[in-house]
Amino acid sequence: MVFFAPGNARKSIALFDTTLRDGEQTPGVSFTTEQKVEIAGQLAGIGVKIIEAGFPASSAEEREAVRAIVAAGTGAEICGLARMRRDDVDACLDCDVDMIHLFIPTSKVQREHTVRMSMDEVLAATAEVVGYAREHVDHVLFSPMDATRTDWDDLVRACRTAVEAGATVVNIPDTVGVMTPSAMKELITHVVKEVKAPIDVHCHNDFGLAVANTLAAVEAGASQVQVTVNGMGERAGNADLAQTVMALEAIYGIGTGVETSRLVETSRLVSRHANFAVPSLQPVVGENAFAHESGIHAHGVLEHPETFEPGVMTPEMVGHRRRIKFGKHAGRHAVSQMLADVHLTPTDAQLDQILEKVKAFSGRGRRVTDADLYAIAEEVVGMGAVTPSVQLSDISVLTGTHALPTASIRLVVDGTEKVACSTGNGPVDAAMRAILGCLPEPVHLKEFSIEAITGGTDAIGHVTIAVEDRAGHIFDASASSDDIVTASVDAMINAVNLVRRVEKGE
Amino acid sequence: MVFFAPGNARKSIALFDTTLRDGEQTPGVSFTTEQKVEIAGQLAGIGVKIIEAGFPASSAEEREAVRAIVAAGTGAEICGLARMRRDDVDACLDCDVDMIHLFIPTSKVQREHTVRMSMDEVLAATAEVVGYAREHVDHVLFSPMDATRTDWDDLVRACRTAVEAGATVVNIPDTVGVMTPSAMKELITHVVKEVKAPIDVHCHNDFGLAVANTLAAVEAGASQVQVTVNGMGERAGNADLAQTVMALEAIYGIGTGVETSRLVETSRLVSRHANFAVPSLQPVVGENAFAHESGIHAHGVLEHPETFEPGVMTPEMVGHRRRIKFGKHAGRHAVSQMLADVHLTPTDAQLDQILEKVKAFSGRGRRVTDADLYAIAEEVVGMGAVTPSVQLSDISVLTGTHALPTASIRLVVDGTEKVACSTGNGPVDAAMRAILGCLPEPVHLKEFSIEAITGGTDAIGHVTIAVEDRAGHIFDASASSDDIVTASVDAMINAVNLVRRVEKGE
Repeated sequence: MVFFAPGNARKSIALFDTTLRDGEQTPGVSFTTEQKVEIAGQLAGIGVKIIEAGFPASSAEEREAVRAIVAAGTGAEICGLARMRRDDVDACLDCDVDMIHLFIPTSKVQREHTVRMSMDEVLAATAEVVGYAREHVDHVLFSPMDATRTDWDDLVRACRTAVEAGATVVNIPDTVGVMTPSAMKELITHVVKEVKAPIDVHCHNDFGLAVANTLAAVEAGASQVQVTVNGMGERAGNADLAQTVMALEAIYGIGTGVETSRLVETSRLVSRHANFAVPSLQPVVGENAFAHESGIHAHGVLEHPETFEPGVMTPEMVGHRRRIKFGKHAGRHAVSQMLADVHLTPTDAQLDQILEKVKAFSGRGRRVTDADLYAIAEEVVGMGAVTPSVQLSDISVLTGTHALPTASIRLVVDGTEKVACSTGNGPVDAAMRAILGCLPEPVHLKEFSIEAITGGTDAIGHVTIAVEDRAGHIFDASASSDDIVTASVDAMINAVNLVRRVEKGE
Repeated sequence: MVFFAPGNARKSIALFDTTLRDGEQTPGVSFTTEQKVEIAGQLAGIGVKIIEAGFPASSAEEREAVRAIVAAGTGAEICGLARMRRDDVDACLDCDVDMIHLFIPTSKVQREHTVRMSMDEVLAATAEVVGYAREHVDHVLFSPMDATRTDWDDLVRACRTAVEAGATVVNIPDTVGVMTPSAMKELITHVVKEVKAPIDVHCHNDFGLAVANTLAAVEAGASQVQVTVNGMGERAGNADLAQTVMALEAIYGIGTGVETSRLVETSRLVSRHANFAVPSLQPVVGENAFAHESGIHAHGVLEHPETFEPGVMTPEMVGHRRRIKFGKHAGRHAVSQMLADVHLTPTDAQLDQILEKVKAFSGRGRRVTDADLYAIAEEVVGMGAVTPSVQLSDISVLTGTHALPTASIRLVVDGTEKVACSTGNGPVDAAMRAILGCLPEPVHLKEFSIEAITGGTDAIGHVTIAVEDRAGHIFDASASSDDIVTASVDAMINAVNLVRRVEKGE
């Protein structure tokens, strides 16, 4: 189902990824050369056409990284960034890139306060350096920086000067993210008409409009778009790769060449290397993107997924999974389904009672976890005697500057007391290893995440663990506490009990 | 500077906030009644016109919360949600709300798979229940659920039926977030023409387009918009309040009635109560929204903030602050400014050497903190003898199920060894309290955040601390480790040393 495919839009779009350049400019983010090569390989592997690998003139380390990416032979075209200077071009050439991305400010505010050049000086530098670059490389991308705050006549003059000097593609960057889709459509329509070259756009997210502005440019005839994985980049970031690709493919029916079923995998790889968490609300790839808790939504999705999901985009399309999550707003159908999964089949009256108790419980502001639901349900159906097969007797964890993080634990497993201790990379890791040391069976840990928030030093941390049973079924368990170590321990024990209960068919 | 003010748009827009209803449906989020009353007070206080307080029919606890919000007399209009049923309306009336929001699905997929009603049955129920509600309350908002996937004729029939029965406002929800701004503009233009009532929109963010679609609806003549704080809500969430307000005010020049300088404060309040972190890349309110690290950007902003910020939106306008952050991409100007702040004035040649070392350091993939910069700079300018005034000798932290979280610490403070111990809410809290116990002066902690990521149990956690000196200057310090406790300790000691150095004018 395609909702909108406007007349000026191309049938397919070239994807230009700048995760390794603008994305790495996210404050606090820094990739090693090895990580950059791995990310470039992933991007090329999923079908990204052009990868901006870095800014070679900025340092010897950056040059080495760009060279390594070129040498890796990913199959994508590799682009290097350069200011409008011959030595910056030389730094790119030195890396043997396929494309050079030359930029120079054209807006009055940036010309006056950064490079201190008149418009004529900008045009002269553009003609000279773009020409120089084209003598040595087939693909030259020209960016009039802060294009969207540039006088339209100046903008067109700069673009035409670059194209006449040999620029092969012209990029219109919304450097400070001030465009709206309507304004972008108007501007790009004008540029497409006045400038005889393929048009690219690079949108920032200061008002949350980066993806929308990118799509508006495509509607107006842009043939290339710049994106980053997880929307990383300066300030509020850039247009997100996954959102842009899925909107183009699923809503517009425009091809991007991307293997969409690897979008979640790509997001997680970059998140790991950037040490940068993907927000749970992140569209397409975030933990909540296909998660349903509230009664009406979960019921609808259990009947037919398209009722409360876009339908044109499914979790399978992007390599995600659908989750019916338990919580305060859970309704009859989801709860009854969740209990059936662990072989609990309350009567209708018992189900009413369970729901009532769950709501009262969460009204006190606590997050209700799967484990809480099962405890309530067992109480109501009178199975109080069924105790979890793994119970925590005691854990203590020590860490410090001169202490190797160490955990000792006493668990009751299937009625027998087990004791184990372990060191680890930190107190949480040590505790997890100690738990696993007490269990007779291996536990297949799929995900471990700590969600902590800005606040005081006593803020509540929330730990979520996903474990896989032998049948490949994935169970989430979680726990919250102001002590991140004991929250992790509780979450892990909840997860283990869940898998054991299901596997034993209790 | 207004970039775009289209002809159909109103001069001002009514803001309808649904943080307490759709926002609370974010999986895992649950507010207590007291928190809901506080959030409603905050929203009314900053100028939000209408607050959707909850869904009274869903539970006794929900009814009690809505009643408490009405009783608080915030000054905003309080709205209650209701399915198209008399008993749901009665539950709202029982709470004495100012407005009832009645919804019923109109799209084929939702009618067939959720309520199992024909279009005629939907129209009959709408006429009856909207009429019943209007007998008892002055304001009735009608939502044809999944409007954007509804046949246009069916949609107009449903809206007209509701308006004839007494609905005072018609909401067009993009329930599963499949619209684009162009499609939204077309749809709302049609609805505004065909339906004689004020039009409201409610947009979901499945493709990252919720804010853009909301703005497109405003361009087409919608006079009310639904938002949530931090964009919380089902799946990828709803249109974010801060982004929508700032785009309307700063780009379109359209009034929302909101005191924008309290947007960051509002975001943080809800984040705290929802136990839901605001992503650093979040537009407008996120930590990075006005943060600059890379050389060209930081230099530009130091010369003139408008060069690399929207200009039409400043940190002051939203209650945020501008930060020049130190890291791998930092350039000469920012580094030299940062060193001057702590009374280090390297020569040009020394500055070159410092920058070279910083880049080599971060090329190894480590996050470079402020503390690393100062250590490098001191080494280069030959101040190796100046040791930090607070040095960690030893810390050990114990926690567990039967152990009160306890930290003992030995610090050298101004050359004298100090020992302290403290209990706390968790091991991190205990360690922080122990550090403060060793210091002669109070430390004004502004922010403490742990950023942890999905990965293994040994993932790196990154701790950021902001402290304020007596002059009101705010310093960030951070540390990373796979041991969250020692990372917190390192970050705190870095922060304390930074403030002490500046205050002593070393």
